[in-house]
Amino acid sequence: MGMMTEERDEFRPIEWLTSGKVRFLDQTLLPADEAWVETDDYRVVADAIRRLQVRGAPLIGISAAYGLALAARSIDEADVPAFRSRLRKAAEELAATRPTAINLQWAIDRILRLIEDMTEIGQMRDAIVADARRIHDEDVRANRTMAEHGAALLEKGGAALTHCNAGALATGGYGTALGVLRKGWEQGAVTQVYATETRPLLQGARLTVWELQRAGIPVTLITDTATGSVIKRGLVSEVVVGADRIVANGDVANKIGTYQLAVLAREHDIPFYIAAPTSTIDLSIANGDAIPIEERSPEEVTNVKGVATAPSRTEAANPAFDVTPARYIAAIVTERGVARAPYEESISALFQDKVETRG
Amino acid sequence: MGMMTEERDEFRPIEWLTSGKVRFLDQTLLPADEAWVETDDYRVVADAIRRLQVRGAPLIGISAAYGLALAARSIDEADVPAFRSRLRKAAEELAATRPTAINLQWAIDRILRLIEDMTEIGQMRDAIVADARRIHDEDVRANRTMAEHGAALLEKGGAALTHCNAGALATGGYGTALGVLRKGWEQGAVTQVYATETRPLLQGARLTVWELQRAGIPVTLITDTATGSVIKRGLVSEVVVGADRIVANGDVANKIGTYQLAVLAREHDIPFYIAAPTSTIDLSIANGDAIPIEERSPEEVTNVKGVATAPSRTEAANPAFDVTPARYIAAIVTERGVARAPYEESISALFQDKVETRG
Repeated sequence: MGMMTEERDEFRPIEWLTSGKVRFLDQTLLPADEAWVETDDYRVVADAIRRLQVRGAPLIGISAAYGLALAARSIDEADVPAFRSRLRKAAEELAATRPTAINLQWAIDRILRLIEDMTEIGQMRDAIVADARRIHDEDVRANRTMAEHGAALLEKGGAALTHCNAGALATGGYGTALGVLRKGWEQGAVTQVYATETRPLLQGARLTVWELQRAGIPVTLITDTATGSVIKRGLVSEVVVGADRIVANGDVANKIGTYQLAVLAREHDIPFYIAAPTSTIDLSIANGDAIPIEERSPEEVTNVKGVATAPSRTEAANPAFDVTPARYIAAIVTERGVARAPYEESISALFQDKVETRG
Repeated sequence: MGMMTEERDEFRPIEWLTSGKVRFLDQTLLPADEAWVETDDYRVVADAIRRLQVRGAPLIGISAAYGLALAARSIDEADVPAFRSRLRKAAEELAATRPTAINLQWAIDRILRLIEDMTEIGQMRDAIVADARRIHDEDVRANRTMAEHGAALLEKGGAALTHCNAGALATGGYGTALGVLRKGWEQGAVTQVYATETRPLLQGARLTVWELQRAGIPVTLITDTATGSVIKRGLVSEVVVGADRIVANGDVANKIGTYQLAVLAREHDIPFYIAAPTSTIDLSIANGDAIPIEERSPEEVTNVKGVATAPSRTEAANPAFDVTPARYIAAIVTERGVARAPYEESISALFQDKVETRG
């Protein structure tokens, strides 16, 4: 199975093309259609982030980086301050697409910092494109390292529950939580995955099932209402999910519905793991209360794939994320190692040797 | 608002017609269409229960009673043992439609017991029809009494969270959990209701929102994934749900997703209430582990209203109910009063004066 798995693992939901364009999979059409979009317009990328054609915190960061690269290539200015000013506007537009995932701002800040001292527009363009591609490659490498760290934590022969999609489709490739489960499957630790459908946008049903099936990993889909029953009946040995933002004290913002899984995991004494690259960590925020939570359109709740489920004038609340306090989290798995409580210290320690490991 | 409310409260999802037929609302078509089915064939009623055209534990019981009345009227036998034998077959067919709600078996047993000593077929037919109608009327009365008991428990000025549909549509009329919230709204205790959409069959989005809107009660729809967030942010003061079967120790089977709400309620120190008539109580079962849990078709999980949400060959688990252990339940509200822990005693006490109160 080795080679086939390797081949499947190579799947990337976004690519920089040698033509100077970006090509990404429109995830809103999965699993029915596998449609790729090719563009040299950063606004198409911004719109794709906004509309969730690309989604998942790490992939949002990579997409924003590529968006900035497209912007840099298309800004037709000979004057450095004018170039910078237009680039900054594009960066702001990209950064404003979605508020919760910190990877977005992280990628943009990193690129802008990189060109801070450059004085030549051509050099800046090349540096931005190169760094965007580096951000992408680093993410895939980080996921593979994270998978090794995470798989070592899994109970041998158990089933795992995951929520939303934290797979290749949510990242540059391979996946965070699903990367851990992929590796756990290869090593025989994970025998099966339970995937929640993840309303409102059904990333679990649409994306996680699709990915795990491609990888040949047995997956059982359940409604979000069945998680309590599945955990209570002892059908899973652990819960493994991704993250949209991890703050200094270890509180984690992730897809709506994550928090209740953490509560259920603790109630039934099974570990609740977060898998996310260090680019997801926001040390500027002390605790989860300060994380901005995106509120999306009520239509996502009152409709499923364009079909109305509720009376026409229904009011709905639609927070896209929730915050899981650090005390529910057994471990945060990153590419730099595994952080455990007390998280203030363990998370801070991940950044001690930043320069060396980041390469 | 008094008269209008009274009028709205009169809504009944099933009726016995003077023509000797039964008329029921096909709830699978709500909220888009309000289509009523009229039949004199008990097999149409059995099929309606199986297909969830009528659903909700108390309404299932009432429907089975009316189904048995239709069967009694249509069985063309002059011979008493032959009549009884065919009636028993119809009763078995009705009882087999759904395994979890005990009200179904309760209503059938009650009717069969009633005619045990009768010797005349015409007398039996009349008695069965009369008792089916009595079961219906008693249920509506029970809900109104239950609502008074339950509303007294609600925090003044708070919002309540409910799951699935335990309203007029789930009962003979008025509702159990929604009856309590209706009364709480009239008395100013409840200012707003949060309704979960309740996947897979969306009874919350389709039915609870529809009912509460008709009653003029402010309702906010949320996905099942948002319950942890809503409870954690302190947006609700209590959770109130119905029940499909309550057993001797106070464990409660109810719609899948109920258990996780109970865990969240306890985690955040808000009361979790069950509202159900005593016909939902099954003293023959000691604890929740022995309650049969209906597993429904995986297509309910992989599709929403006929639209596929997952890849075509997806495996899915679809338990229709879960069991909430008694220790999570602040009170069980019935028409005979409010039971609290220790439930063995308080539930048993509800049946002490059975003959007198039931009359």
